[in-house]
Amino acid sequence: MTEVKFIEDRDRLRELAPIAGASIKRHVFVCTGKSCSAVESAEVKNAFGRELKARGLQYGKEKKGCNPNGSVVLTECGSVGFCAIGAAVMVYPDGIWYAQVRANDVPEIVEEHIVNGRPVERLALLKIPGK
Amino acid sequence: MTEVKFIEDRDRLRELAPIAGASIKRHVFVCTGKSCSAVESAEVKNAFGRELKARGLQYGKEKKGCNPNGSVVLTECGSVGFCAIGAAVMVYPDGIWYAQVRANDVPEIVEEHIVNGRPVERLALLKIPGK
Repeated sequence: MTEVKFIEDRDRLRELAPIAGASIKRHVFVCTGKSCSAVESAEVKNAFGRELKARGLQYGKEKKGCNPNGSVVLTECGSVGFCAIGAAVMVYPDGIWYAQVRANDVPEIVEEHIVNGRPVERLALLKIPGK
Repeated sequence: MTEVKFIEDRDRLRELAPIAGASIKRHVFVCTGKSCSAVESAEVKNAFGRELKARGLQYGKEKKGCNPNGSVVLTECGSVGFCAIGAAVMVYPDGIWYAQVRANDVPEIVEEHIVNGRPVERLALLKIPGK
């Protein structure tokens, strides 16, 4: 590849990536691996986008319906080993892994966990760091 | 889609997804979005796999060179907004976001951060939760 010069200037880095200067509280990952996709994880991710945007929580550009001062990042991810029990959703830094998530579970996860800080026990299956 | 029955039995869930019974300490995500891929994030992810497997740290099946008792999960993810300063690497639950990561930075991140618990300051650009 073309050699890319390492940028040391922190102000320059924040210009190039405004999120580096943002105050992010949580990062939600939705698995879009093959098995999770088969149980409609794309719909689960879309549902998170709808719920988070409606509350002004999703960090991102206004023209995409997001909030430049939002506190939650939403990202898709590859397989995490929940292939037989998808869709998998992880909420960090809490370290909560949810299994068998459907789009209609998302409002509860956003309201209870993201807003009120109480993980949804009936769907939560793994906690990181483990014992 | 075909309706999938919700499984309530926790033992059955652990049979279907052994990771649900594992003791995971950290989850490393490497961005494989378009911009990060252009600066060889696939090589960065491979380097993490090599370093973690060599130390018996990567959770997974032995036939894939991983350790069923490993404590680190390695996953790719979609874009996080570090597109201009990739490759982006996130380490959770620590909440450390690294920018401008190259494959040859990976042994230091594994040794210093994953093994010794000291994030590599020269590459770390964002901490979650933010202030």
